[in-house]
Amino acid sequence: MTLPSDPVANLAALIRCPSVTPADGGALDALQAMLAPLGAVCEQVAFAEKGTPEVNNLYARLGTGRPHLMFAGHTDVVPPGDESAWRHPPFAARIDGGEMFGRGAVDMKGGIACFLAALARYVERNGPPPGSVSFLITGDEEGPAVNGTVKLLEWAAARGERWDAAIVGEPTCRETLGDTLKIGRRGSLSGTLTVIGRQGHVAYPHLADNPVRGLLTLAEALLSVPFDAGTDDFPPTNLEITSIDVGNPAVNVIPARAVASFNLRFNELWSVESLKAEIGRRLERASREARLRPGHAAPIAFEVEWRDRPSPVFLTRDRQLVGTLSASVAAVTGRRPELSTTGGTSDARFIKDYCPVVELGLVGQTMHMVDERVPLAALEALTRIYLRFLEDWFA
Amino acid sequence: MTLPSDPVANLAALIRCPSVTPADGGALDALQAMLAPLGAVCEQVAFAEKGTPEVNNLYARLGTGRPHLMFAGHTDVVPPGDESAWRHPPFAARIDGGEMFGRGAVDMKGGIACFLAALARYVERNGPPPGSVSFLITGDEEGPAVNGTVKLLEWAAARGERWDAAIVGEPTCRETLGDTLKIGRRGSLSGTLTVIGRQGHVAYPHLADNPVRGLLTLAEALLSVPFDAGTDDFPPTNLEITSIDVGNPAVNVIPARAVASFNLRFNELWSVESLKAEIGRRLERASREARLRPGHAAPIAFEVEWRDRPSPVFLTRDRQLVGTLSASVAAVTGRRPELSTTGGTSDARFIKDYCPVVELGLVGQTMHMVDERVPLAALEALTRIYLRFLEDWFA
Repeated sequence: MTLPSDPVANLAALIRCPSVTPADGGALDALQAMLAPLGAVCEQVAFAEKGTPEVNNLYARLGTGRPHLMFAGHTDVVPPGDESAWRHPPFAARIDGGEMFGRGAVDMKGGIACFLAALARYVERNGPPPGSVSFLITGDEEGPAVNGTVKLLEWAAARGERWDAAIVGEPTCRETLGDTLKIGRRGSLSGTLTVIGRQGHVAYPHLADNPVRGLLTLAEALLSVPFDAGTDDFPPTNLEITSIDVGNPAVNVIPARAVASFNLRFNELWSVESLKAEIGRRLERASREARLRPGHAAPIAFEVEWRDRPSPVFLTRDRQLVGTLSASVAAVTGRRPELSTTGGTSDARFIKDYCPVVELGLVGQTMHMVDERVPLAALEALTRIYLRFLEDWFA
Repeated sequence: MTLPSDPVANLAALIRCPSVTPADGGALDALQAMLAPLGAVCEQVAFAEKGTPEVNNLYARLGTGRPHLMFAGHTDVVPPGDESAWRHPPFAARIDGGEMFGRGAVDMKGGIACFLAALARYVERNGPPPGSVSFLITGDEEGPAVNGTVKLLEWAAARGERWDAAIVGEPTCRETLGDTLKIGRRGSLSGTLTVIGRQGHVAYPHLADNPVRGLLTLAEALLSVPFDAGTDDFPPTNLEITSIDVGNPAVNVIPARAVASFNLRFNELWSVESLKAEIGRRLERASREARLRPGHAAPIAFEVEWRDRPSPVFLTRDRQLVGTLSASVAAVTGRRPELSTTGGTSDARFIKDYCPVVELGLVGQTMHMVDERVPLAALEALTRIYLRFLEDWFA
């Protein structure tokens, strides 16, 4: 049997499966077929939950011993949008001008294709690794992310699986391959702030209490003072008010309530709980001090509701994992990657509860866009980086 | 023929016509039938405009000479709401405990009933007045107010009608009959303020421009500095932000635009144009100075859209009209009324372009409510005030 040592062929096989979340489109079967010649033990498992689509996932392990390295990723992709706007059909894996076109090319079938090729080359050169390599692949990363990585990790751990390190193959690079390695992620916390006023006619403002005024004051309290100045590893904590909604169509009526939605991206100086407490302190204080400003009911009556499932902040301090991967990048590209913690959340936030985790993949510039595509040279280079990492990490 | 000198009987006849805007319910016919014995020349005229219901109006004039006094009002009423919640049916004109119940009892069939009775008593005592008295009655005050007073005034003026003074019979009093006479009204100006930002992911705020931040800054510029301190006749100009609407359901997305609606009630220190200019200056300045605040795109990109048909401010300085009416109130009630300019807009804002206008009617406490009602004693007292005014004004 031929080992899947060509990332271009691997990626073409994956792109041709139209696996738009929550559909699988044969992508996991295609991946399993490529893993089989390596001797990996594969298991597909579907998870479901009320209100969300059932999703297929794949867990494959090559070897039984330790150390045990996990490669994590997803085969599902976002919808292609208007297919006629694409230069090449989004599920055809056409090569044009040295680039392969297709939805998922960089996010992140490309990462899977490269790691698979790297492992195949490792086995070709060295035989099976002195330990284990697992693929933890979900079809629910671009969707609700309920029936994917979280449940697959729990399922595997319940069967006794233990890991020593993990690489997530998401597209982490900004401009050139290997420029960025993600060693952590900020936390994310969302909530709504409701200010309760008293409805009335605009001609009689003294008989009413305009909640918009109170909301402006409280919003100012959230925005005006920085939460911190950032750390060596993280940018400053940031709060964005993502929506304000009053919904009052009558311009002669003072509304009864005003609601703001907000999101915080926070660094390691905060936990979800300490940040909730800080928000509460700021609001309580501004509410009380509102009496010092004219035109205000004081204290301002408000409520905060926190959204479910905030993401905790994490930072991977494992020198062996980070250092080895960083050195592998440098060996292939000639430049050490930036160790970054910026950007949105990723499934790494779930994996960090099981083992140290870093993220390294392709350049993300065309992800989620029309004409998503990847240079064939980048596929080869990422494959070499992963291969170098496997050789050094197992050495 | 019997003259309509009893305000209670007049009001009962009007309440029994279910004239919920835009329906007439026979109200104008009933009024015309009561005016006929006085020798008034009556004409009903319907106005229509695309997008609004056709509405009946009545113009009736007693006499042909000058001076010419106009009494203005409306026979349409707001809906009764849940009729089962009423102690007495809303169109039955039941008397209970010395009060007459019914929709329109105070707003403002009661005012019409009293002025009609006052005019009848005047004619009984003195014969026709040495001049003219006109009734300018619309059925479109509680509705869109498009096919009512404005067009009726234009229609009458086009036929050569000229007036020397006008009384609007809206319920102006706060707690006791005669406590308040309205000699002017603040202006009203409404608009929307849109801040244009740049959409993006909350995890990359530096790549986006959150319009909520800009909107908070601009709103602060509108609210933080008083427009004026009020005048002898008017309270301070006031701005209320009546709604803010972003409508962004995604808490991980920075929205592209944010919209605030606002309304100004302004005094004689401003015109519609000068106020628009002041708002523009405040916004331009805050937009430019935003560069001094961190986290802001500067200048803030914004647009202001003004609503159609702002109401100009007006103040009636006619000493003969105001002084005579004020003295009439004092003669009947023993107390001089407060000369007020507070409250919402009224049709007086249209009449002031033709002649000096004041507003005096019943106590408004139950207007627009379930169990709208008026004490019979108040009907008698208001009739006497109007009668005293007619005698003094024509003397």
